[in-house]
Amino acid sequence: MDHKIGSGARCAMIGYGSWATALAKVLTENEPSIGWYVRNPEVLESLRDKGRNPRYLSNVRFDRTRINPSDDLDRVVSEADIVILASPSAYLKKTLETLTVPLKEKFVISAIKGIVPDDYTTVVEYMHDHYDLSFKQLGIITGPSHAEEVSLERLSYLTVVCTDPENSHTIGHKFATEYIKLSYSTDLYGIEYATILKNIYAVAVGMAVGLGYGDNFLAVLISNSAMEMARFLRESYPDQRETRASAYLGDLLVTCYSVYSRNRKLGLLIGHGCTVRDALDEMTQVAEGYFAADCIRHINARHKVQMPIADMVYEVLYKGVPVREAMQELTTKLI
Amino acid sequence: MDHKIGSGARCAMIGYGSWATALAKVLTENEPSIGWYVRNPEVLESLRDKGRNPRYLSNVRFDRTRINPSDDLDRVVSEADIVILASPSAYLKKTLETLTVPLKEKFVISAIKGIVPDDYTTVVEYMHDHYDLSFKQLGIITGPSHAEEVSLERLSYLTVVCTDPENSHTIGHKFATEYIKLSYSTDLYGIEYATILKNIYAVAVGMAVGLGYGDNFLAVLISNSAMEMARFLRESYPDQRETRASAYLGDLLVTCYSVYSRNRKLGLLIGHGCTVRDALDEMTQVAEGYFAADCIRHINARHKVQMPIADMVYEVLYKGVPVREAMQELTTKLI
Repeated sequence: MDHKIGSGARCAMIGYGSWATALAKVLTENEPSIGWYVRNPEVLESLRDKGRNPRYLSNVRFDRTRINPSDDLDRVVSEADIVILASPSAYLKKTLETLTVPLKEKFVISAIKGIVPDDYTTVVEYMHDHYDLSFKQLGIITGPSHAEEVSLERLSYLTVVCTDPENSHTIGHKFATEYIKLSYSTDLYGIEYATILKNIYAVAVGMAVGLGYGDNFLAVLISNSAMEMARFLRESYPDQRETRASAYLGDLLVTCYSVYSRNRKLGLLIGHGCTVRDALDEMTQVAEGYFAADCIRHINARHKVQMPIADMVYEVLYKGVPVREAMQELTTKLI
Repeated sequence: MDHKIGSGARCAMIGYGSWATALAKVLTENEPSIGWYVRNPEVLESLRDKGRNPRYLSNVRFDRTRINPSDDLDRVVSEADIVILASPSAYLKKTLETLTVPLKEKFVISAIKGIVPDDYTTVVEYMHDHYDLSFKQLGIITGPSHAEEVSLERLSYLTVVCTDPENSHTIGHKFATEYIKLSYSTDLYGIEYATILKNIYAVAVGMAVGLGYGDNFLAVLISNSAMEMARFLRESYPDQRETRASAYLGDLLVTCYSVYSRNRKLGLLIGHGCTVRDALDEMTQVAEGYFAADCIRHINARHKVQMPIADMVYEVLYKGVPVREAMQELTTKLI
């Protein structure tokens, strides 16, 4: 495989959450047909019969001639050239368990903003290590985007990241619509880590709000988060990158300032006085920042980058440090 | 004058708006006595008799033994070593009109986030040019701070900027309280322009919200604003600076995400369909971004930095370009 994607390459979506559903909606604006792996029988049936995902973004009506929902992962993957991973990172391993056909000839794009728990790796690293995929056949699609706004066709920007810019553009064209604008990057490492780090910072923001800190402090916390993100990327993997671009800073902003962010909500509950256990139980959806805090701590043991905000979140989530004290301590370290 | 500030230096506040009032409150936590130039007779009387500014932040009660309000500018300035300018930039020239005593022996700090209309200069540049002050005796105090939150003693960060770090620290100590943390910088040029640019970007954000764009787009617009700000500073006055710090990015964030920002409100009215004239009339307080858009356009004619967002705001405010078209055109230039 020369890892060049042709414009006729067929896409398959893996996952049925809100982000998977939003991306499937966008794809079907351009693609005559996409494969769609859906494990959940209720969602599968509804997509087949009504062109509607009853669980997430139920406002979206799909043209049923353009989607091929199936619970047969091998079939969905076999019939595709581009496989888009969009299940929560915590379920990625489980989702791929039933896969028996090889991915070696495929182009695999991660739309997952999270890490693979226990393995302490990003999704791209995990796919590279466990499925024998070269980084040339791996990509990322990301951007500062609530799935809800995408489903409502409000103008949003996506960034496609591949080591080969030609591939990025071929993939990008499949997503370009009147309400989706595309940016391109080759910074696989930096952008994937940015999407992971921002979830940790959103937990920190939620904690601050829960503790009663105001907008002045949030602006300081978020700008320090942007600095910490840039520092981590610079020191762990130096590269020419503009970390103020949408895929880095924009994604951080949309997550930290969104009252709908699951990560922010996790922090908020803890800031309000819930124990970590109770806060996690309270959440109906996975907060990626919870796993990310542990993972980044582990990875940063190698790099030893100064990360006072990520450290604070880790210590509250995993070490039982009281959130009020941890935040107060953090306030002395911000600039 | 060797331009070294002693720790016993006496401060005077010029102005009685919300930011002047908030800074006066903070100063009086540490200073046994501050001068305070207040032109408005009603405010002056109330500050003297009740220790309260009835117009702005009326929740703040001053210890009357610690403030010396006066409408005699010469006297206030004569009795001070550090003069803090905190009137709206549009009124600065008028405010200083009655001054007849020299400023040459004083240290002058601008707390004004705006430019001097007609002169196309920043406040620091204006004071340098018109009052024969060296840059060594000029400073800035800024930070991502709503005056309201400062008055409520919610944790906020201020940055003091002087060419001599020792002076910054001496001034900073006067503002340090339990709810105010200090940062320091020597980047007079960069931080002053950042405080000016952010008002233009807040107008752009208001326009986008008024036109119905959502959070996904706002995150893109604001991250592109951060890039544009960094680019302008880098190309117009290269220096080692971290523009993700609170005084740059933090201030941008608190202004752009605040629903109370006057600049954002100006943009919002225009985005909703008001003419620029009507929107300006509607505003009870000056929107600094209005003047800033014209000034930066003028200054950037020299530097020729790519500034699509500031240009868009200028064209809508001054050239009659319809906001919907201008914004749509802008969306094709963001990344």
